[in-house]
Amino acid sequence: MDTGDTAWILVSTALVMLMTPGLALFYGGMVRAKSVINMMMMCFGALGVVSILWILYGYSIAYGESQGGLLGNPGDYFGLSGNMSEIMDNIPLMADVGFQGMFAVITVALIAGSIADRANFWTWLVFAAVWMTVVYSPVAHWVWGEGGWIGELGAIDFAGGTAVHINAGAAGLALALVLGRRRDFGKGSHRPHNLPLVMIGAGLLWFGWFGFNGGSAYAADAVAGVAIVNTIGATAAALLAWIIVEKLRDGHATSLGAASGVVAGLVAITPAAGAVNPVGSILIGAVAGVLCSLTVSLKFRLRYDDSLDVVGVHLVGGLVGTVAIGFLATETAPDGAQGLFFGGGVDLLWRQVVSVVAVMAFSFVLTYIIGAILQKTIGFRIDDDHEVVGIDKVHHGESSYEIGPEDIPHDVMARVAQGPAKPVSTATPAAAPASTKRRISTGEGEASPATG
Amino acid sequence: MDTGDTAWILVSTALVMLMTPGLALFYGGMVRAKSVINMMMMCFGALGVVSILWILYGYSIAYGESQGGLLGNPGDYFGLSGNMSEIMDNIPLMADVGFQGMFAVITVALIAGSIADRANFWTWLVFAAVWMTVVYSPVAHWVWGEGGWIGELGAIDFAGGTAVHINAGAAGLALALVLGRRRDFGKGSHRPHNLPLVMIGAGLLWFGWFGFNGGSAYAADAVAGVAIVNTIGATAAALLAWIIVEKLRDGHATSLGAASGVVAGLVAITPAAGAVNPVGSILIGAVAGVLCSLTVSLKFRLRYDDSLDVVGVHLVGGLVGTVAIGFLATETAPDGAQGLFFGGGVDLLWRQVVSVVAVMAFSFVLTYIIGAILQKTIGFRIDDDHEVVGIDKVHHGESSYEIGPEDIPHDVMARVAQGPAKPVSTATPAAAPASTKRRISTGEGEASPATG
Amino acid sequence: MDTGDTAWILVSTALVMLMTPGLALFYGGMVRAKSVINMMMMCFGALGVVSILWILYGYSIAYGESQGGLLGNPGDYFGLSGNMSEIMDNIPLMADVGFQGMFAVITVALIAGSIADRANFWTWLVFAAVWMTVVYSPVAHWVWGEGGWIGELGAIDFAGGTAVHINAGAAGLALALVLGRRRDFGKGSHRPHNLPLVMIGAGLLWFGWFGFNGGSAYAADAVAGVAIVNTIGATAAALLAWIIVEKLRDGHATSLGAASGVVAGLVAITPAAGAVNPVGSILIGAVAGVLCSLTVSLKFRLRYDDSLDVVGVHLVGGLVGTVAIGFLATETAPDGAQGLFFGGGVDLLWRQVVSVVAVMAFSFVLTYIIGAILQKTIGFRIDDDHEVVGIDKVHHGESSYEIGPEDIPHDVMARVAQGPAKPVSTATPAAAPASTKRRISTGEGEASPATG
Repeated sequence: MDTGDTAWILVSTALVMLMTPGLALFYGGMVRAKSVINMMMMCFGALGVVSILWILYGYSIAYGESQGGLLGNPGDYFGLSGNMSEIMDNIPLMADVGFQGMFAVITVALIAGSIADRANFWTWLVFAAVWMTVVYSPVAHWVWGEGGWIGELGAIDFAGGTAVHINAGAAGLALALVLGRRRDFGKGSHRPHNLPLVMIGAGLLWFGWFGFNGGSAYAADAVAGVAIVNTIGATAAALLAWIIVEKLRDGHATSLGAASGVVAGLVAITPAAGAVNPVGSILIGAVAGVLCSLTVSLKFRLRYDDSLDVVGVHLVGGLVGTVAIGFLATETAPDGAQGLFFGGGVDLLWRQVVSVVAVMAFSFVLTYIIGAILQKTIGFRIDDDHEVVGIDKVHHGESSYEIGPEDIPHDVMARVAQGPAKPVSTATPAAAPASTKRRISTGEGEASPATG
Repeated sequence: MDTGDTAWILVSTALVMLMTPGLALFYGGMVRAKSVINMMMMCFGALGVVSILWILYGYSIAYGESQGGLLGNPGDYFGLSGNMSEIMDNIPLMADVGFQGMFAVITVALIAGSIADRANFWTWLVFAAVWMTVVYSPVAHWVWGEGGWIGELGAIDFAGGTAVHINAGAAGLALALVLGRRRDFGKGSHRPHNLPLVMIGAGLLWFGWFGFNGGSAYAADAVAGVAIVNTIGATAAALLAWIIVEKLRDGHATSLGAASGVVAGLVAITPAAGAVNPVGSILIGAVAGVLCSLTVSLKFRLRYDDSLDVVGVHLVGGLVGTVAIGFLATETAPDGAQGLFFGGGVDLLWRQVVSVVAVMAFSFVLTYIIGAILQKTIGFRIDDDHEVVGIDKVHHGESSYEIGPEDIPHDVMARVAQGPAKPVSTATPAAAPASTKRRISTGEGEASPATG
Repeated sequence: MDTGDTAWILVSTALVMLMTPGLALFYGGMVRAKSVINMMMMCFGALGVVSILWILYGYSIAYGESQGGLLGNPGDYFGLSGNMSEIMDNIPLMADVGFQGMFAVITVALIAGSIADRANFWTWLVFAAVWMTVVYSPVAHWVWGEGGWIGELGAIDFAGGTAVHINAGAAGLALALVLGRRRDFGKGSHRPHNLPLVMIGAGLLWFGWFGFNGGSAYAADAVAGVAIVNTIGATAAALLAWIIVEKLRDGHATSLGAASGVVAGLVAITPAAGAVNPVGSILIGAVAGVLCSLTVSLKFRLRYDDSLDVVGVHLVGGLVGTVAIGFLATETAPDGAQGLFFGGGVDLLWRQVVSVVAVMAFSFVLTYIIGAILQKTIGFRIDDDHEVVGIDKVHHGESSYEIGPEDIPHDVMARVAQGPAKPVSTATPAAAPASTKRRISTGEGEASPATG
């Protein structure tokens, strides 16, 4: 066992865990104020449900002894009680359990973006449990499990272009179709209610992604270093590409575009972080930024309500990155594979395409079936009236913000304004009693340090 | 010295440090908009005061040569100038100083939740200084110092169930009693003013807790891996347990409940992270989620104003976790102890109970005395009028949010609406001049990428 | 190669990366609601532009073979395609590339604070590209490159007092002069629009700074441990010093002051983290807290509009820390140098002063020239009208918050209030139909768990 490698995987576990709260904020800021609670709850709910099932049997299905390349033996690591001191090559098995578990969580949480504002929270939790069992865990086995058929095929997926992003993207599309369009899809304003919240989320996602991609080297070595530099390069390029497209098309570079570009770049480099060189990563990011920004508007033409663009960002971004490996992989990169542009012919390319198509089809079909069954049985979509009033209030009994002014009695206000305790309003004593609802002026707008 | 272990402790130091700003947001989102500044300042203030005293003498009191098991020699590491190149077994002493210092900070900050809206900020800073000196540092010695009596007794506290959570919880109860109920306790709305802020805080706390529990292994090894998987399991279970209780009792699963469940689970697994297996951790989390969610309403019946439930979450959660070790500890876990359910009899259980009772009693009594003296001398509770108007404005001269529309002159608005610089309002030119207070419509609700 | 050291540098890369989103929030919270988008975009834009150029040639200019101590050979690491498996002493070269790249990004982003509300976003991106090329990368070579003249001179800059903070501070002053004062400088309210956002930013900056300073040890060892403890000590002291000055001068301790103190302390200890002992770090922090808090008001007397105090915090803080080394450096600290107070005479002091003056002059002059050329050619400052209306709406087509109540039709509201789905408004059924704009009372203010 190597303590340096272990330290890196433990940290990466924490980083990938943080991506789900980060996603809650990223998605939460994008919806309207009346459904931010629900969006955050779907993400945190995934953290709850998936984590427990991962410990119980999910890790086993993904990493147990391969059953014909399709899934691992669910009993191999059931409950993990017997594996607490087990060491894999260079790290403890439990570090691997935690690290991989956080991948399962974020993959499920990503799907929530396609069904904003209209999904029953409890049905969502059931969906999360079923989907991680029959879709995520097997696909993770295909790609990363010992003997998994996609790995055996020789397709490259460094950190989850297929298993995470194409998987979640195809599932998002299926669920959006099952639940149907929101009542006001294509009408009225769907502007993000809190863009600083979106940016907090984007920042935390980028930060966490250093563990997602870097940790997938499974060692603190040059491979991890390459993965991180490539992650930086692709993300930077996608950010710029997205806002340049916006500027040319709409006349403005938006923060929503910048944040979306960040995520698109991160998604696209995920499978390729170990296969391309830094210039290749910049290319992949730029292509992803352009293609994702162009495809997010597809939903209005094709009339599917993928509310927060899980398809446009994760499915398309995952496709770009996974297929790009077939072109841009270079032997000097850690994965040591050769793409079409580096003299490797189409040998790698077709394997990449097969892996993409297989995961996309499997995920879409199974998710559609799971979603349809849940909708028919326990119900998945909420009442139209509840959607209009807002799912936060009706289903969660909460209001996201309570920041309006309070009623303060006149006499209290007056006493404080004149009191001996250095009241803040001494500079403008007449203002305070005039209206109890006015803000008390601090009278120090300009004196306030660091406020220009 | 081992660089991998050292890297892990350095990272854990950063992670535990982040918990205090995370707590500032978690607590800050829960109070009303008129006292969020004060709540954040109490947390950041603790970071300031406790950090300095920890460097000067706190580390010495906790980890200096034991004086009869009760406290360390305060002179041993005074100022730390002579210890900069000292190495402990596998890590540098300075890494330990930083790591443990961040535990002292968060423990003090946790207490602030019980006295929201009504504590004089400067008295709070004095309290923080005194409390870390006479309560925290000695108790840390009892539990973790070489020769500390609780450690010698054989009670298990992996990462701070007694030293941190029961300690802070009992102190929170004492201070809530000393300062008394808020004027409007049990009346009016005390709803959290910003639930996304609460969720940001909860996310950062969970993230930081990977360092809190994982780092307490003091090595990047299988023990740390177990601690992290157990931390995930318990937290996930407590989150779900809390919102299920809410659903059954109130009809809704709230984000406040989810966030509270997260913290309750993290607290409960803290002492037990190295003593139980992953299934045990799920059980502990579930029990903590249920018991904490049921006990937070005790304060209304017993009429003590523990404003943000330091007692309900940290004292009760710490109790659950510390006592659960006596039942659920299993020899196959890193700590190698056996609880009642695994054939160990009551031998471990009574030691756990003794440690709990001792820390609870010591902390409650000393905190009450310190609080009462401060209240009688320099004053601890603020004026009632200031509480009504809001401590932020009166005591900090600040208003948390200034996000209402500004007055923009008509002519400027009109010029921009017609200007050549691709103004955003071209789609609705008539709207802009109508009222200077209206938001300028961007007219691109639907075209906006990634916004559905 | 050492995996522990590598793990620490990889983590530090992620930590330093997070500082730029953290800065976006810190700065973003301080401006008014009408320009928060633009401020965040300038920071994220720097992440985009600088990252790509760093990979292409920036790392080469900073760390390529020295050309007379002034800059590295730009071709040495061009594009980095040939360096993916290269190992430096104890870490992979690519880990160094990522880590140092994040320093370049944050340095550029820091400058944005001086030109809030009034800079054309696209010109800013051009500026970022030019400045990182001709100012940042050469100065980084002077200080840290092998053979760089400041390093050769024997001046100490552990983690960037000169290369990052004085550099950014002087550049900020120059740009503030080039762009000129905002229309309402010194008039009206410039209060921060969202103080919790400022505190989120300050918390993330402090957290990230553990990587900034700790990672600059380039190993997971006692040096990193000292750097982290010193970082804690100085920051804590500066936080307290700043709010004590405020209390004495204005009567209130503000959260803006606490956040500014945090950053001032972090800046000041940056160059000195390896040169002083923990008590020295507390002194440096205290001095920085006092001096920075006093100098931020200089701008009103000298009439330069350094909007968010890049000069007052980064230039002054960087000066304090870099010069303080000349006094407080102690042989027992990792750097092993002796300052005036520890018997080293003025030998170290004059070298520190030379490095400060050189970086300050170089950065100020070049930045002024770059800024003036951009202003004369493509234009840097936006129209006055756009500034009044708000740069967010006019230039980015976005509104930061949309959290006002929505219009919900009466009949929908009434149906939900009476419906079978446990509507939240049952406690006050009469209230709902009365006005569609009122919040639906949940009627559970007191029952709400964990809400006091």
